[in-house]
Amino acid sequence: MILEQLGSELGLAVHGDKSHDVSALASIATAGPGQLSFVVGRKYTNALKNSRAGAVIVPANMLDDSPGNALVSDDPYASYASASWLLYPTPAPSLGIHATAVIHPDAQVSPRASIGPYSIVGQGSTIHEEVVVESHCTIGRGVTIGAGSTLFSRVTLYDRITLGERCRIQSGAVIGSEGFGYAWTNGGWRQIQQVGGVLVGNDVHVGANTTIDCGAIEPTVIEDGVIMDNQIQIAHNVVIGRNTAIAGCVGIAGSTRIGSHCQIGGACNIVGHLTITDQVIINAASLVTRSIGESGRYGSGMPLQEQSAWRRSFVNLGKLDELFRRVRRVERLSGNSGSQ
Amino acid sequence: MILEQLGSELGLAVHGDKSHDVSALASIATAGPGQLSFVVGRKYTNALKNSRAGAVIVPANMLDDSPGNALVSDDPYASYASASWLLYPTPAPSLGIHATAVIHPDAQVSPRASIGPYSIVGQGSTIHEEVVVESHCTIGRGVTIGAGSTLFSRVTLYDRITLGERCRIQSGAVIGSEGFGYAWTNGGWRQIQQVGGVLVGNDVHVGANTTIDCGAIEPTVIEDGVIMDNQIQIAHNVVIGRNTAIAGCVGIAGSTRIGSHCQIGGACNIVGHLTITDQVIINAASLVTRSIGESGRYGSGMPLQEQSAWRRSFVNLGKLDELFRRVRRVERLSGNSGSQ
Amino acid sequence: MILEQLGSELGLAVHGDKSHDVSALASIATAGPGQLSFVVGRKYTNALKNSRAGAVIVPANMLDDSPGNALVSDDPYASYASASWLLYPTPAPSLGIHATAVIHPDAQVSPRASIGPYSIVGQGSTIHEEVVVESHCTIGRGVTIGAGSTLFSRVTLYDRITLGERCRIQSGAVIGSEGFGYAWTNGGWRQIQQVGGVLVGNDVHVGANTTIDCGAIEPTVIEDGVIMDNQIQIAHNVVIGRNTAIAGCVGIAGSTRIGSHCQIGGACNIVGHLTITDQVIINAASLVTRSIGESGRYGSGMPLQEQSAWRRSFVNLGKLDELFRRVRRVERLSGNSGSQ
Repeated sequence: MILEQLGSELGLAVHGDKSHDVSALASIATAGPGQLSFVVGRKYTNALKNSRAGAVIVPANMLDDSPGNALVSDDPYASYASASWLLYPTPAPSLGIHATAVIHPDAQVSPRASIGPYSIVGQGSTIHEEVVVESHCTIGRGVTIGAGSTLFSRVTLYDRITLGERCRIQSGAVIGSEGFGYAWTNGGWRQIQQVGGVLVGNDVHVGANTTIDCGAIEPTVIEDGVIMDNQIQIAHNVVIGRNTAIAGCVGIAGSTRIGSHCQIGGACNIVGHLTITDQVIINAASLVTRSIGESGRYGSGMPLQEQSAWRRSFVNLGKLDELFRRVRRVERLSGNSGSQ
Repeated sequence: MILEQLGSELGLAVHGDKSHDVSALASIATAGPGQLSFVVGRKYTNALKNSRAGAVIVPANMLDDSPGNALVSDDPYASYASASWLLYPTPAPSLGIHATAVIHPDAQVSPRASIGPYSIVGQGSTIHEEVVVESHCTIGRGVTIGAGSTLFSRVTLYDRITLGERCRIQSGAVIGSEGFGYAWTNGGWRQIQQVGGVLVGNDVHVGANTTIDCGAIEPTVIEDGVIMDNQIQIAHNVVIGRNTAIAGCVGIAGSTRIGSHCQIGGACNIVGHLTITDQVIINAASLVTRSIGESGRYGSGMPLQEQSAWRRSFVNLGKLDELFRRVRRVERLSGNSGSQ
Repeated sequence: MILEQLGSELGLAVHGDKSHDVSALASIATAGPGQLSFVVGRKYTNALKNSRAGAVIVPANMLDDSPGNALVSDDPYASYASASWLLYPTPAPSLGIHATAVIHPDAQVSPRASIGPYSIVGQGSTIHEEVVVESHCTIGRGVTIGAGSTLFSRVTLYDRITLGERCRIQSGAVIGSEGFGYAWTNGGWRQIQQVGGVLVGNDVHVGANTTIDCGAIEPTVIEDGVIMDNQIQIAHNVVIGRNTAIAGCVGIAGSTRIGSHCQIGGACNIVGHLTITDQVIINAASLVTRSIGESGRYGSGMPLQEQSAWRRSFVNLGKLDELFRRVRRVERLSGNSGSQ
């Protein structure tokens, strides 16, 4: 794609040779003449000056440092994200229903949707236009999939799931599995029927092998613009607010409500029945056991140590009661009560 | 369903208008006239007094506080669990084998079982009556599935798996994958053949995308009444005792034995070759590195702190060796040896 | 199998009755006359002396302690691993393409490969000889699977995946799902196209429900001989060096490079953009937040305590700032500055 066309599609001014051709993306350090790269700020000035890239997306204040062709953007990283879809367009799916797909007679599938081999659409479900359902998906009863959404291969939607528009669900994800609700009685666990379904907004992305349970009575809710990585577990009746981003391997227990614009680090675990306000950032591998009422950054994980230091750390931790007692004793002996 | 019928099916006495009709469940705070709710004890007295529910399941000692129709139960939560299946019955599956299912000629499938589209039953396997196998399941060789069990869509059972009666396996679960057993030799890992299979008792529930490895020589064992949430990993030759409940994202390493009636909190990790006795409760996100010989509650996870406090916590933890030395020194200077 | 044949196949000398027949494996404590067992060193001397096993694989220096038939090996555990495949051979798959498999006309499948029911091979993909693809697998576009590799049922390979020879991929694994790359712009997340694919070497094992994301521009790389357990999450552009072993439930964030011959304990989490050198061993459930430049053993997880002790531990941890202040005060009062 020549830079003139790229600039026009991205809405960016092009400096240098507008007829230069780029066909791929690369990092600023490795990009060659046929590749497009980007820099986001001053700490990349040297890398930019030495770059051999065919073109670089730069902020206006770095244009003078660019040795070759440049596209000027207020937000180079976002422009780069957009360019990625122009340079690597997704192959168009074949429209229509594959001969091996099993569609219930009471389901409605738009003639502009694509249903792949061996996929199944259940009774009373509606698949809107531009939806792509790849192979081996099971779509239950009473499901709605909004326009432009994509289910990669091997996705399960149980009954009573509503998916918004432009959602993107990676392979192996399960939405609507039975919430973990049981009463202990007569020496055994009696399961409670889970009928709340799942309500997923627009522009929600769900990672590979992520699981989202259906609600008990009310639905589990994922609001618009939420992005979720792989192997996340969302229990029944969780609510996740708009545009919250959740990294891989996070677990969120039942009925917890997470605000909008939060960022949950990888492998965090959040216990049930909490409320977390908007714009909370939680570091990787943290354990959240209380509600969070104030925006800000939080953490709890213990970082790695060399093994003998790590062992001493937790041995010492177990001896703190004793240390507090010893300090109180020397305070008394030195005539200091411990209060100022 | 009218209250008279509901009371009769649940074995509960009905107080008030026995012809009143309820069709749904709701929490005590939100239930309206067409809905059934429940309360378990005194702390819900005010909520009960103000409830607009069509009927409430109450303990006998709260009947006088009920403003409307009531069903009296020794265990309101368990009665509510039972009511959930009466008010929201699961649609009956279509009996028989779907035309697209692939059944090995040496497999035995009860005419009263249901095998869904694109599912596969291997050589020498037996599927008993009232079993429901949804779509895209793979059932290997020499598998037995007991009466009344349900496999939701996209479940894999490898070879040599025995599943008891009334089990319930959510979508994406894998039972019998090869245990992680390797010998290091000649500069590489040599895998050890895993042939022990998995023995799953009656009334066992397995969550979505949970994995249970087959044993090396002896089977991995899940005893009767065990309930497991989503994304749990059970390694080879683990034994889990009767009625133990395991929340989501737990990992249990090889050959560990867990007793009966335990409750393992979400995201706990238990290392291999341990023995945990009966009736042990472990808090969420704990790390278990030693056997547990006494019933009781245990934990290890560090709860969340605001980020700067959290950083100080582990900086302080690393300085404890120094602090112990400083305390010993002031003890000597103050004439106190540190012993009482 | 008689011991003479077993010894010949394993390259081991047989002592005792070479015509004795064994048909199964067992541990040294439980093995009976028809079973083969092994011991690795002196701590099993008593068990060996009392063993009723039909034969035992022993190191040369324990041959005199063997009460019955013995096979002498420099590495009894590795010999036992090899014996496991002789005594429990995997049933040969039926060669060829199942009638229900969907093979793109531009794909190349060796006539000596096996493609199971309902599996799909996409455009431009190549499946080499002795490859076994079980049921319900989806193989995307431009994929190569090297000779002798096995995909168990329900494995997804996205587009642009290269798998080496003799790989073994358990059920539910996903290789090549879209990496978690987004730019925040105009009040929403804009996804970055992920086109780097995944490059998997020879003799790589991938556990059940493990996920490996495709790289953004460059591939995610798993080098030769890496073994991975179940439910591991490998983010985009991670590189894992030769023969590294990773236990279950580990998460590795984007662009982190792990050296060769490392051992990563179960449930470890490793944040992004780190470099870990060769021969690093990390204990279970550790959090890695910094690069590791030296081989050795590392850890961070806090082991379990009885609940009241655990609560005191982290209450004490929160009071350490105060304790440090109190110790400084008594040091001043006792005329000691805190420096030696």
